[in-house]
Amino acid sequence: MQAQKTMESFKLNAVGKVKKKGNVVQLQISDKYGDALKGLDGYSHVFVLYWFDRNDTPKKRSILQVYPRGNRKNPLTGVFACRAPVRPNLIALSLCKILSVEDDTVRIEKIDALDGSPILDLKPYIPSIDSVRSGVRLPAWLEKR
Amino acid sequence: MQAQKTMESFKLNAVGKVKKKGNVVQLQISDKYGDALKGLDGYSHVFVLYWFDRNDTPKKRSILQVYPRGNRKNPLTGVFACRAPVRPNLIALSLCKILSVEDDTVRIEKIDALDGSPILDLKPYIPSIDSVRSGVRLPAWLEKR
Repeated sequence: MQAQKTMESFKLNAVGKVKKKGNVVQLQISDKYGDALKGLDGYSHVFVLYWFDRNDTPKKRSILQVYPRGNRKNPLTGVFACRAPVRPNLIALSLCKILSVEDDTVRIEKIDALDGSPILDLKPYIPSIDSVRSGVRLPAWLEKR
Repeated sequence: MQAQKTMESFKLNAVGKVKKKGNVVQLQISDKYGDALKGLDGYSHVFVLYWFDRNDTPKKRSILQVYPRGNRKNPLTGVFACRAPVRPNLIALSLCKILSVEDDTVRIEKIDALDGSPILDLKPYIPSIDSVRSGVRLPAWLEKR
């Protein structure tokens, strides 16, 4: 139970890759991890956690504030207050509609990931814990779009 | 742009810790990363990504299927088809209500994390991309609860 309790860094291993070809988007899970998909076909939507691998440089990981969407009309914003693809830990989170689950491949409707992006984890979407029914507040720059 | 394109493993650094004391729950962000919080006070809810550090052993990271919530009445399920705290990459995802953001501390209403859990990332909750309005499907074992 004490494992790595005082550690401050952790190792991620890719469990698969995002494959995009025309309109077809597939999450290709590595053989080794295929068994982890059992039962995913019971859900309509899944959170895909992947790695912004093209930005994995010390310089990009040190960026703490950005103008969201590269638009200088947006206020300078911390990366923990927007979804910029530069951040200390380059974890991306996308909610996707599942089309099918066959063997080690999950077909999804679409994803904003680049082709070849390493997949870190899949988490099924469960509205009771993953959504908010009322009282959501957003900053003005985001509401306007 | 080619950085780590062929790499299959990635390094995470903790950016802070979950602190729980009685009913008070705080996300304590390290000095080094405090600037990344700028503008988070404009949102009502945030996804907290943290590390299931107590389970960071090769054995627990190799578990691919579980009986959800340890209940043998639930069907054997892949870890990518439930939210079990054992998975190849021990990333936890919790949607939390923000109470305040002051200096390097975010007070939140509650979180299922253990005290001291390392924080990996914060992502503001944006309903247009993070929620599904209709057509959500869940497996039978989850709908029954």
